[in-house]
Amino acid sequence: MKNFQFKILNCDKKTKARTGIFKTPHGIINTPVYMPVGTKGAVKTVSPEELNDLGAEIILANTYHLYLRPGEKIIKSFGGLQKWTNWKKPMLTDSGGFQVFSLAQEKGFTKKNLKTLVKIKEDGVEFKSHLDGSTHFFTPEKVIKIQTDLGADIIMAFDECAPVHASKKYIKEAMERTHRWAERCKKEHQKIQKKRKIKQALFPIIQGGIFDDLRTQSAKFIVDLNLPGIAIGGLSVGESKEKLYHILDIINPYLPKDKPRYLMGVGSPEDILEAVSYGIDMFDCVMATRNARHGSFWTLNGRSHLANTAFKNDGNPLMKGCGCYTCKNYSAGYVRHLFIEQEMLGLRLLTIHNVHFLVDLMKQIRENIKEGSFIQFKNRFINKFKNEKK
Amino acid sequence: MKNFQFKILNCDKKTKARTGIFKTPHGIINTPVYMPVGTKGAVKTVSPEELNDLGAEIILANTYHLYLRPGEKIIKSFGGLQKWTNWKKPMLTDSGGFQVFSLAQEKGFTKKNLKTLVKIKEDGVEFKSHLDGSTHFFTPEKVIKIQTDLGADIIMAFDECAPVHASKKYIKEAMERTHRWAERCKKEHQKIQKKRKIKQALFPIIQGGIFDDLRTQSAKFIVDLNLPGIAIGGLSVGESKEKLYHILDIINPYLPKDKPRYLMGVGSPEDILEAVSYGIDMFDCVMATRNARHGSFWTLNGRSHLANTAFKNDGNPLMKGCGCYTCKNYSAGYVRHLFIEQEMLGLRLLTIHNVHFLVDLMKQIRENIKEGSFIQFKNRFINKFKNEKK
Repeated sequence: MKNFQFKILNCDKKTKARTGIFKTPHGIINTPVYMPVGTKGAVKTVSPEELNDLGAEIILANTYHLYLRPGEKIIKSFGGLQKWTNWKKPMLTDSGGFQVFSLAQEKGFTKKNLKTLVKIKEDGVEFKSHLDGSTHFFTPEKVIKIQTDLGADIIMAFDECAPVHASKKYIKEAMERTHRWAERCKKEHQKIQKKRKIKQALFPIIQGGIFDDLRTQSAKFIVDLNLPGIAIGGLSVGESKEKLYHILDIINPYLPKDKPRYLMGVGSPEDILEAVSYGIDMFDCVMATRNARHGSFWTLNGRSHLANTAFKNDGNPLMKGCGCYTCKNYSAGYVRHLFIEQEMLGLRLLTIHNVHFLVDLMKQIRENIKEGSFIQFKNRFINKFKNEKK
Repeated sequence: MKNFQFKILNCDKKTKARTGIFKTPHGIINTPVYMPVGTKGAVKTVSPEELNDLGAEIILANTYHLYLRPGEKIIKSFGGLQKWTNWKKPMLTDSGGFQVFSLAQEKGFTKKNLKTLVKIKEDGVEFKSHLDGSTHFFTPEKVIKIQTDLGADIIMAFDECAPVHASKKYIKEAMERTHRWAERCKKEHQKIQKKRKIKQALFPIIQGGIFDDLRTQSAKFIVDLNLPGIAIGGLSVGESKEKLYHILDIINPYLPKDKPRYLMGVGSPEDILEAVSYGIDMFDCVMATRNARHGSFWTLNGRSHLANTAFKNDGNPLMKGCGCYTCKNYSAGYVRHLFIEQEMLGLRLLTIHNVHFLVDLMKQIRENIKEGSFIQFKNRFINKFKNEKK
């Protein structure tokens, strides 16, 4: 199998769900796949061995953060991300586009003053570091160069992630800029790839907000770039779940079957199940790791919180029947004690459980697609999982 | 071999150093031994498997902290400390005496106002919780009962750890109270042990500050209690290193050869080497774990700090030739990055290295005592380690 070849193994008959394998220089990924997020070059609290043991096949790192600290040149000098972090399997880096824009949005800037904080030009984006306020300029070409130095197997095109409540006019402009930037990313990437032994796959990103016509227009454009994968960005950023699923539905006919589709930043167990039914193959989300650090964890009955005093005397594992290291070795009572005391081991045990929960969910999704029982599995899971709190 | 039997294997000819084995219900400890500190029922940042892999044979937990949260009855309901924490090897609990007094001292209270914050009576000590200010009363009997519920293999007598700069008169009073409390602890312990299947060894504690006559008086008294081990408390609390070594020297003749001697709260690599030469068998110290959380680590050349920018590009391990998980798998440059970003994985990798450093030092000490080369090893190590900063 060639690098960056995607092979579909099973297709569900009642939905658009499918299973497949995607080949990368660091190994094969089984899809649908959940990618734990290692923002700064480490999935928070856990080691590469723990990630491997719980079944993770690919992890994500953030271009924006690693560019600022320690700098991509340092990581390159160590032989790239995998050698630096000791994670030996596939990796993906995002383009930093989302962070550049979202860090401004988090501060409550509107479209108008966003332009003064994050200066968007045709050539690229000027932004200020959240660490020290220093000014930086990202162009599509620069972002590709940084990701080349970082050396992940899959790299992302530089896109503009417009605020969800911006006008249609603005979202159209941002989308068209994203398209021009995607072309420039492709050109720069091809130029660099000719000179390099290490191969990387570039995924361009569909934008277009919550507008059917923009999304289909963007899907067509991005698909025409004919790169090894297709990403869908700018969703799960504040729009309703119905809108999210609707967009996945309307762009589906334009997506080639033989390429993996990556829905960026999604999501919760139910969102993943829904998106799989619309033919999505790849997911990333900080929920598993972030929730853990706040003491919350998933079971088949939804989300629970360790602050609940009911867990104080609980000799059962966090989730009965769970095969993760935490549930096989520790009681909910002990994990609660560690969380209450803010012992790092507690946050780590919760992270292991939550990441395992999603990795195991993907495994069950793949098995049920293969067995032709995906829709039943999905409905049964979501029905039981009704307690999930947002 | 019977529980709590201590068997000397090798004696050094030039110093009082010796190697031995101490049998407990959860296994054998090879002495001299370093015990990592798991204050609240977990050695900060690391798992029981990691501790086991790096060679730890016994860990310590704190009665004071576990009594306050989650409470000894909860730990008892889980089957005791080992079942609760999933650490399957020997454990030791301190008596809480040191915490009760040191928490007041940390706040800068003198002997006079110490009495108002921590009310010392013949029956026991009234103190306020550092968590919520609630009032509690520890008696020797209560402390033994709590430690029975916690269920460690080795438990400690309740002692008064007087401030190092208190008058000789006060230190004598505190020592005599400690002796009376040790007798009460022994009595309560014997009463409980008759009724229980699970066996625990009680170690009484020698006090007496930095005064030769008080220390020898205390040594004689504590030895006469004829319990399975002897602890030395109230040292490494502000006195000079020379005083510490001197006290170890003068009490040595009074200590029976066939019982393990535990020097509480010591120490640094050099202090451990010196104390071993005076016949000490057991050590505990938070330095390895605490230093790690502050970014500092030991090598054979002394102490280094990861904040040093020289480590930024360093592709070498923290210490060349080190066999710990961290050094075998990560560069100093990557561990530095994790520390700078305050990623928990970084604090964990540093903890593993530091704890392994002391565990491995003890192993080398034992080997060199066996081979008759302890004094050469000690001098060579200390000479090289001169960079150590306090």
